[in-house]
Amino acid sequence: MSVFTIIGAGMMGSAMSFPLRDNGHEVRIVGTPLDREIVERLKKDDCHANMKRTLPPGIRYFQIEDLPAAMEGTDFFIGGVSSFGVEWFADYILPRLPEKAVVLSITKGLRETEEGIPETFPEYLTRRDKTRSISFNAVGGPCTSYELADRRHTCVTFCGKEFETLRTLRNCLATDYYHISCSTDIRGVETAVAMKNVFAAAVSTAIGANEMIVGLGGQEKYNPQAALFGESVRETGRLLKLMGGDPDAIMLAAGDLYVTVFGGRTRKLGILLGRGKSYAQAKEVLAGVTLESVAIAKAMSDSLRKLAAQGKADLADYPLLLTLDAVIHHGAKLEIPWEKFILDRP
Amino acid sequence: MSVFTIIGAGMMGSAMSFPLRDNGHEVRIVGTPLDREIVERLKKDDCHANMKRTLPPGIRYFQIEDLPAAMEGTDFFIGGVSSFGVEWFADYILPRLPEKAVVLSITKGLRETEEGIPETFPEYLTRRDKTRSISFNAVGGPCTSYELADRRHTCVTFCGKEFETLRTLRNCLATDYYHISCSTDIRGVETAVAMKNVFAAAVSTAIGANEMIVGLGGQEKYNPQAALFGESVRETGRLLKLMGGDPDAIMLAAGDLYVTVFGGRTRKLGILLGRGKSYAQAKEVLAGVTLESVAIAKAMSDSLRKLAAQGKADLADYPLLLTLDAVIHHGAKLEIPWEKFILDRP
Repeated sequence: MSVFTIIGAGMMGSAMSFPLRDNGHEVRIVGTPLDREIVERLKKDDCHANMKRTLPPGIRYFQIEDLPAAMEGTDFFIGGVSSFGVEWFADYILPRLPEKAVVLSITKGLRETEEGIPETFPEYLTRRDKTRSISFNAVGGPCTSYELADRRHTCVTFCGKEFETLRTLRNCLATDYYHISCSTDIRGVETAVAMKNVFAAAVSTAIGANEMIVGLGGQEKYNPQAALFGESVRETGRLLKLMGGDPDAIMLAAGDLYVTVFGGRTRKLGILLGRGKSYAQAKEVLAGVTLESVAIAKAMSDSLRKLAAQGKADLADYPLLLTLDAVIHHGAKLEIPWEKFILDRP
Repeated sequence: MSVFTIIGAGMMGSAMSFPLRDNGHEVRIVGTPLDREIVERLKKDDCHANMKRTLPPGIRYFQIEDLPAAMEGTDFFIGGVSSFGVEWFADYILPRLPEKAVVLSITKGLRETEEGIPETFPEYLTRRDKTRSISFNAVGGPCTSYELADRRHTCVTFCGKEFETLRTLRNCLATDYYHISCSTDIRGVETAVAMKNVFAAAVSTAIGANEMIVGLGGQEKYNPQAALFGESVRETGRLLKLMGGDPDAIMLAAGDLYVTVFGGRTRKLGILLGRGKSYAQAKEVLAGVTLESVAIAKAMSDSLRKLAAQGKADLADYPLLLTLDAVIHHGAKLEIPWEKFILDRP
């Protein structure tokens, strides 16, 4: 049995304690500075106030100032911050990790480098850590924290540079409900995983648009959603190619997109935009909700425009992504460009 | 403007009259021998009793014995039978069609040839018509008849051998809600379209299984559905390769699978099997419902076993499809083989 320290007491990071404790590992959870109240409550009665689940017994909880104690004797680290916490993780946690630490991160997202190139988080962290040799690995695939905590069947993919490390992590985490594939295709897995957030918002606009036609609570319609779903998978496939990922990662993207349309926060944003709200109005309604999709849409769209200017990408390949970006970041009114989805194969 | 004759008064065939009439074409609908009552009612008040929609004004309706009158002066035929009607179509309609007829078929499915090879319907009909030169084309992509009738945005793909014919058909049918791509990849489009029916049943088993845990009406869970969705897309991708279709048709499959999980009859079968019912019990509950998925699962699984015996396919590539086939055709109890979905990429 090993010692796992989860950095970040968010829902997904905390949910990783279920397979870990079921397999008998020692688990420590360290809150970020933003998790202070969550950790206070967990210390009291193991209840995760946001996830509304009681975590398995036997976990030790730490506030950020107690990080050194939490790290002592740790075999593996789980990076449990959201995409908005990645820079904090790089600034504050990285320098404090041991020389050869192994990190498995649940953070989903993409950054834009200063050169305007999209970059996955494992790549970013490796770059930030370049003088040492920490192993950065990540979890991709369709998984909501609630359902992992409820021990529902979940298929994910661990990605990282060293296959042996991935297998070691799998041996620690695999249970009869948590099914893990391993892949060294970091770019494929992470691009698929990041983009599904953006495209889930795009698919969900059809739900909102339908409500404007049949009224709230009226019969849902699926042709438009399915058309946007298909286009989303298609544009993700093109992004995978552009990013140098394995096209097979499209399988991950499809399942992940499916779960995010139904189970995620991003759905709400899409529905509001589909109802005709501007992004500014939608943001007001969603006050306080962190929307990773918005940051990822911007990073990827900005990158695409720069790559297109250099002749390295064709903007016509991404009509849905760029429509969403225009609405979110440039104040455009949502108009789905249906005709641009037509794809002939003579 | 052209004259379109729709053969078969089922829901999907009849729904094609909406874009056709919106574009000002003359439309005639001829019922099969099974559609007698539907046609009787349509003649009276244009109401399609099964679809519960009033068809656009100006359509002429015919019983099967009036086929010759309906065919007179027809420019294009729409094949509007279900997969169970394809042999009837080949036996009865084909010999009566003009020498160079152009047919656009809405039938979705796959047959097994006597040699045990899966065959698409356009291929089957071409084979049956081999001494003449009828042009067989087909519609793929996510589209429920109700929503086409309600003029909801729908993206489909017309497939056939001659690209120019496909473009001609598109010119006749494209509207501001019916968006049509054209592809000469018949095997890709038709395999994607047929298999989504089978895999929609597979994904839906997770809905039934969830009901057994949380109770009917309890909170839906998405991790297991998403895992099955991802595996479905993956196995469809492998079948596309096996069938010699373009791997890009996977994009069609994903959107089509999405709409079928939500909008189709197949969902009900999956839910019942997921609740632990045997196929025999499920069939009893669904008495009277035509389940194309069942026939397609059998045709494809039987073919796969024969191809595997010849070393041309690996059964390990299709764990979900073969599980479903075992339940439906071999009386097995449903046990999702989660561990077989693990796919490493070292």
